[in-house]
Amino acid sequence: MAGNSISNAIFTDLYELTMTQAYWQSGTTANARFSLFFRTYPPDRGYFVAAGLEDVLSYLEDFCFSEDDLAYIRSTALFQDAFLDFLRDLRFTGGVRAMPEGTIFFTDEPVLEVEGPVMEAQLAETFIINQVNLQTILATKASRVLHAARGKTLVEFAARRAHGVEAANKLARAAYIAGFAGTSNVMAGGLYGIPTFGTMAHSFITAFEDEAESFRAYARSFPDTSTFLVDTYDTLAGTRIAAEVGLEMREQGHELRAIRLDSGDMLDLSIKARAILDDADLGKVLVFASGGMDEFEVDRLLTAGAAIDGFGVGTKAGVSADAPWTDCAYKLVEYDGRPTLKLSTDKQTLAGPKQVLRYRDSQGYFDHDVIDCADESAPPAGEALLQPVMEKGVRTLDPPALADLRKTFAGEFALLPSEYKSIKSPGRFDVQISDRLSKLQADVTAGVRRRMA
Amino acid sequence: MAGNSISNAIFTDLYELTMTQAYWQSGTTANARFSLFFRTYPPDRGYFVAAGLEDVLSYLEDFCFSEDDLAYIRSTALFQDAFLDFLRDLRFTGGVRAMPEGTIFFTDEPVLEVEGPVMEAQLAETFIINQVNLQTILATKASRVLHAARGKTLVEFAARRAHGVEAANKLARAAYIAGFAGTSNVMAGGLYGIPTFGTMAHSFITAFEDEAESFRAYARSFPDTSTFLVDTYDTLAGTRIAAEVGLEMREQGHELRAIRLDSGDMLDLSIKARAILDDADLGKVLVFASGGMDEFEVDRLLTAGAAIDGFGVGTKAGVSADAPWTDCAYKLVEYDGRPTLKLSTDKQTLAGPKQVLRYRDSQGYFDHDVIDCADESAPPAGEALLQPVMEKGVRTLDPPALADLRKTFAGEFALLPSEYKSIKSPGRFDVQISDRLSKLQADVTAGVRRRMA
Repeated sequence: MAGNSISNAIFTDLYELTMTQAYWQSGTTANARFSLFFRTYPPDRGYFVAAGLEDVLSYLEDFCFSEDDLAYIRSTALFQDAFLDFLRDLRFTGGVRAMPEGTIFFTDEPVLEVEGPVMEAQLAETFIINQVNLQTILATKASRVLHAARGKTLVEFAARRAHGVEAANKLARAAYIAGFAGTSNVMAGGLYGIPTFGTMAHSFITAFEDEAESFRAYARSFPDTSTFLVDTYDTLAGTRIAAEVGLEMREQGHELRAIRLDSGDMLDLSIKARAILDDADLGKVLVFASGGMDEFEVDRLLTAGAAIDGFGVGTKAGVSADAPWTDCAYKLVEYDGRPTLKLSTDKQTLAGPKQVLRYRDSQGYFDHDVIDCADESAPPAGEALLQPVMEKGVRTLDPPALADLRKTFAGEFALLPSEYKSIKSPGRFDVQISDRLSKLQADVTAGVRRRMA
Repeated sequence: MAGNSISNAIFTDLYELTMTQAYWQSGTTANARFSLFFRTYPPDRGYFVAAGLEDVLSYLEDFCFSEDDLAYIRSTALFQDAFLDFLRDLRFTGGVRAMPEGTIFFTDEPVLEVEGPVMEAQLAETFIINQVNLQTILATKASRVLHAARGKTLVEFAARRAHGVEAANKLARAAYIAGFAGTSNVMAGGLYGIPTFGTMAHSFITAFEDEAESFRAYARSFPDTSTFLVDTYDTLAGTRIAAEVGLEMREQGHELRAIRLDSGDMLDLSIKARAILDDADLGKVLVFASGGMDEFEVDRLLTAGAAIDGFGVGTKAGVSADAPWTDCAYKLVEYDGRPTLKLSTDKQTLAGPKQVLRYRDSQGYFDHDVIDCADESAPPAGEALLQPVMEKGVRTLDPPALADLRKTFAGEFALLPSEYKSIKSPGRFDVQISDRLSKLQADVTAGVRRRMA
């Protein structure tokens, strides 16, 4: 990662810097507003889970180019010295309205709006998209696995296959917000206070000449918290050995906690392993399964009656393998009080500052949303999802505890009707554009067309 | 990202720590060897491009738990105080043999072998897989786009959609090794000395009331290096405006460098935009295209005759969207001089220390590889791909210059026959197992089966 001398301010696309010089040089320095939204659902998605806001706010609070940053920028020979001096003094002085992390939202809805001098809000684009895109993808994916798991325990196991150390840590956090029990990633446990879980690897077993000896050695170190991995040579033979060692542990006053299956036909093996354990009077030893788990595999196994108590969820969920990207965008919607938009083919934007209003049915379930013009003069007609979280470059709320974000998500997810949670071909939630926003959109579009004619 | 007080040593799965305590407590502390290899090709892949070694070596050289790491590990209440003292003093004292970054390799071939006290080599598993997996995925993907681009200029544009800041930086580096001209990511430019490129965003255009005015403002700031984005309202109308401003620039002694297309039917639009520019006597203004680019789209456009001089390659390549993960594994192959393996269904490993030998045909092209037992007593029969890079915890070679890795890759890629480079359904390169490795494998398997019987 970046050394101490490089700041996150320089994590930006070169065009953000070149545009900023051109804004600055041309006097185009008024206040602007940018909206971050997701244009379309990735495959099989019917909702998104907002995540990434905490990192965005920390970034904006700390925004400041270091001398090393400036030296590198100077070395590109694209920028004027006076502009580099301007960058040296630049801080983020604007405001942010956003949906809290853990909020469920839908396409076209701004999940975050940034306002401030156009240069400040422009330079932040790359980092803001990077973090909200990644963390929303991961939280959304994790929520799908949670839904498929029907209350079974889930542990995030993807540290090794996430796209880097940073992505692994943010994955652990996103999965915890979405209801996972914890993670195998010790760094994430320390950074975020997430419970950590672990079993053993095949290497531990093969380091011993004898599988039973490897289990015994592990049990001596962890007499009350052992999970034995049973598939190194043969899953059912390994389960019988685990049962033997489990009974030895009981003689010494301890209990084996679980076995882990990691390959083969998990449906068949889980049922047979469960029977072996039950026959050995080890009915409380849990069967844990890992290897290729995602919402589709978890659903398949549980639907078919697999005897699995918990899942280690790794690679496929850790990179959101079926949907590793979105088309989220951060677009200028207002400059100097004038609503703006682009008309690019299939990439139109909604002009002006906006609010998202949620309406519920008589039982409290989400019924529909309305994207409206932001109007601070009138109380919103529904539940307003965008909340002020930063003003004049300073947070207006203390950072929420992770446990509270987890509760936010759980509360929201319980109120999302099940048709939108389907892991395949979910229903499309009703998101309406308010009349006044539609009219604004038509007016601004007509103005652009007039100027082009 | 991790604060200063957290070290990369704690980026590990909890089971690496629990196994290490059990190794330590049971006296299972002899030397071990782990092989890192990729079991299968992701869809449409016929080779891999090795990357990630530099980060692995830096991690191993710096390996040391911080006091904050240890305080967190203690807080899990799983570990003994004496073991925490052991961790405090732990450094990586082993060796690494590896293929240089930029090397082309194939399934089952160890790209890296780590040897040392089993506890040290075990704890490093998570970080090593994390980095080699990610960077190899990204370098391989980038090489496919390079192949499809037939010499056209490629710039990596995915900073905003990569999975985090770290992944974005490592993507820029991997793409540069694979032959991209550079990146839009300024932080990566500064960290690695990669050339940076930038154009302008739609927000710059919409911040001005008039598209021509926005181009003029940008050209005043960048009179000789401007690329105008032309699709904000209408691509061909925008191209005509760009041409007008380009001619104004010429009157002032400057030249417009390029236009950028970012939406719509790129084939049709590129040809029409080229004609508009040519008709305006702007034949040297380049047409640059971005938006949804990957090897498949670049190939489709160039095959169909698109008038595109260069591509901004973003999201789909930046997350390797069609193959965002691999099944790479880091497996114990030797403990205390005894070859080891696992027999898990579909996840068998090759026992013992290994070497990969490359054989070429009479014209120098890659013909086949042989995975052999590592045998330091005899000169290898072919070109040995695994080289010693670390001994007793210290690098044996200076870190290579990025420019040299780029040359390594270019040299290798030129010698890979084209059938293995096909972006769809490539041929399968011939990777053989030597007779002595086959015999070792059979002997070790038979030994395991005997013990299980």
